[in-house]
Amino acid sequence: MATITLPRVVPSPAEDAAALLKAFQGWGTDEQAVISILAHRDATQRKQIALEYEHEYSESLIQRLQSELTGDLERAVYHWMLGPAERQAAMAHAATECVQERYAVVVEIACATNSSAELVSVKQAYHVLYRRSLEEDVAARATGNLRSLLLALVSTYRYDGDDNVDAELARSEAKIVHEAVRNSAGAAGGRHDHEELIRVLGTRSKAQLRATFSCFKDQDEHRRSVTKALPRGADDPTGYLRALRAAVRCVADPTKYFAKVLRNATREAAGTDEDSLTRVVVLHAEKDDMGAICGAFQKRASCTLQQAIAKETSGDYSSFLLALLGS
Amino acid sequence: MATITLPRVVPSPAEDAAALLKAFQGWGTDEQAVISILAHRDATQRKQIALEYEHEYSESLIQRLQSELTGDLERAVYHWMLGPAERQAAMAHAATECVQERYAVVVEIACATNSSAELVSVKQAYHVLYRRSLEEDVAARATGNLRSLLLALVSTYRYDGDDNVDAELARSEAKIVHEAVRNSAGAAGGRHDHEELIRVLGTRSKAQLRATFSCFKDQDEHRRSVTKALPRGADDPTGYLRALRAAVRCVADPTKYFAKVLRNATREAAGTDEDSLTRVVVLHAEKDDMGAICGAFQKRASCTLQQAIAKETSGDYSSFLLALLGS
Repeated sequence: MATITLPRVVPSPAEDAAALLKAFQGWGTDEQAVISILAHRDATQRKQIALEYEHEYSESLIQRLQSELTGDLERAVYHWMLGPAERQAAMAHAATECVQERYAVVVEIACATNSSAELVSVKQAYHVLYRRSLEEDVAARATGNLRSLLLALVSTYRYDGDDNVDAELARSEAKIVHEAVRNSAGAAGGRHDHEELIRVLGTRSKAQLRATFSCFKDQDEHRRSVTKALPRGADDPTGYLRALRAAVRCVADPTKYFAKVLRNATREAAGTDEDSLTRVVVLHAEKDDMGAICGAFQKRASCTLQQAIAKETSGDYSSFLLALLGS
Repeated sequence: MATITLPRVVPSPAEDAAALLKAFQGWGTDEQAVISILAHRDATQRKQIALEYEHEYSESLIQRLQSELTGDLERAVYHWMLGPAERQAAMAHAATECVQERYAVVVEIACATNSSAELVSVKQAYHVLYRRSLEEDVAARATGNLRSLLLALVSTYRYDGDDNVDAELARSEAKIVHEAVRNSAGAAGGRHDHEELIRVLGTRSKAQLRATFSCFKDQDEHRRSVTKALPRGADDPTGYLRALRAAVRCVADPTKYFAKVLRNATREAAGTDEDSLTRVVVLHAEKDDMGAICGAFQKRASCTLQQAIAKETSGDYSSFLLALLGS
């Protein structure tokens, strides 16, 4: 269930564009007016407003928003205004600039909720925006096992169906995962390649991979899940083990994965991670899975996601996120 | 320029379907009637005939053709009746069954004339036909450097434009190609990985790669092209070096590459290679590049492609190929 809410009677794009212009004019920007409009329009409506605004006032709405807003609110509204493919392409592009720290963005786009066709749309948008491929930027900026893993994940055009799971294959490939878990420390240090594991993760359908993970647990002497068995990679300077664990978790249970990202992002002790918070909320607020992510968050945290955001963030940025979450 | 020719007045799909049924009936099949219809209809027309035939006579035209025809003619007509994406998916699937010998089919589909969007269509058709991905079949059936290369080539969604060639990058990546050429013997034996070379070939746009190949020649002390510098791999049991050379040639000059495939396929001494002959003619007869391929063939051979085919093949199979080539 998506969390954004639309007004019962939606103003025309021309009315919204005029109201936005009004919010930009005079002393300071009326951020609340901007939020009250844009946080309550769906992707098609936002696109129409942007077209109408550009047509009527001969300037780009997105550029005007960027000049009127600042900080976390500006970044959040900017991403919110892009279409889903462009938004993910922009996020992926920024992440490739420092992929060793921001591998999670690439992993999520490649493995979490996009269908294979949606992933192609993101890569297509990347071509249009940057006149190069996501693959070449990932390949040129990551190294070692991290490069092999990320490149395999973003390149592949997986089979999307869940109608062709091969139980025998799952059993034999679960052994590959076990073997890789055993030599993970070496893989972090670059002494082991994880070629077979990366081939499996990078080519099999998600349904097949889930069957493999399930066999892994059955075969494990301590009945650990792959997620539990994989090292957390806290001391892995290459980022590979953390990216690997993120990929497995994105495939195994994306809802739980995103709920955990949000829990980490709103953890008081570590300081709020606005980038991750914005990314997950903006990407999912109008997708079917946001409701479930909120549910999974609340189940493990001592409060609702809305309460956590209200506590950890402030001002217009906070209002914007809360509006996207239906408050 | 495509080579197939259409009649000035094209019969309706219903008339064609009826004429085909007539050709199937009675004692033996009238192969010449089948050829005179199907070799002179474009992809859309063939599709309409198949739909009309199935609707009118409650059987699949393709299956009926397969039961009426035999040998090389049957295989050629079967592939001719598929749409371009399905045809290439079927060819790729057959090739993955013995990828060490038939790597060229995979390399051509990935690197020669398909745009990135067309390659995605082939992979999509593969999903529909086989309920699995081309990537997983290539990855599961090839090994070592051959696997790394083929997987990189079929997976990637390259930037298609030629508007973003980076000359500095071409110079630095030409050095990577030089380095790889130097240790090619080791790569065939599995002692060297060609990781950097495969990254470059698997991610850069074709325009960028052509610039890199051009720099390679400028930097080479003997002014050899990459194609000339790469070992032919005649004694490479893994198939990797031959696949590598095919990939470079497909990117550098697909017309010349296909003309060479046809020259090898029609070489008297080695025996005719009907599979390759059918593949290239059926794939290109209604594409813009077939005329140029015929031209390149004639330039290097002592005869036209039509003459070579007439000499090396016989019967209805020969007539069919010649009809596709406009004779």
